[in-house]
Amino acid sequence: MRYLLIYDITHDGTRSKVADVCLDYGLNRIQYSAFLGELSPAHQRELLLKVHQRLGKHGANIQLFPLDEKAWVGRKSIEREERQNNE
Amino acid sequence: MRYLLIYDITHDGTRSKVADVCLDYGLNRIQYSAFLGELSPAHQRELLLKVHQRLGKHGANIQLFPLDEKAWVGRKSIEREERQNNE
Repeated sequence: MRYLLIYDITHDGTRSKVADVCLDYGLNRIQYSAFLGELSPAHQRELLLKVHQRLGKHGANIQLFPLDEKAWVGRKSIEREERQNNE
Repeated sequence: MRYLLIYDITHDGTRSKVADVCLDYGLNRIQYSAFLGELSPAHQRELLLKVHQRLGKHGANIQLFPLDEKAWVGRKSIEREERQNNE
């Protein structure tokens, strides 16, 4: 199943550790605070467990959404580079 | 349909304008860069149109995912407050 993980983590070191866990499990960073990728049920459970461990005493809001084919096909995006003033 | 909107927008004023559009359309801010809520097909189109207009020349990465019942029921979250050192 494809998953989207998004987080709010204020502590820099903790955020960096959680990002590393996401990348270790093969998720791609699609935004500063958002990761996307395929996870087996076992890896999904492991990922959340490791994220929990990395948080230590720090506050966090982490949300993981399964995206089935319908959600994936129905996504919309706006992606644009910053334009220079003289363009 | 329930939608999740996530964004990366570096320009502060632009990010604030896009956040206002999301709130205007009844989405709830669930994280610093993530909004969630119900949108009709017409409102979903209008929302993206207004977001486009607010961007001006600034760079942005904005993703909108429809979350059907299965995606919604299957979500997992970790939400915890920062703990004090003496706890």
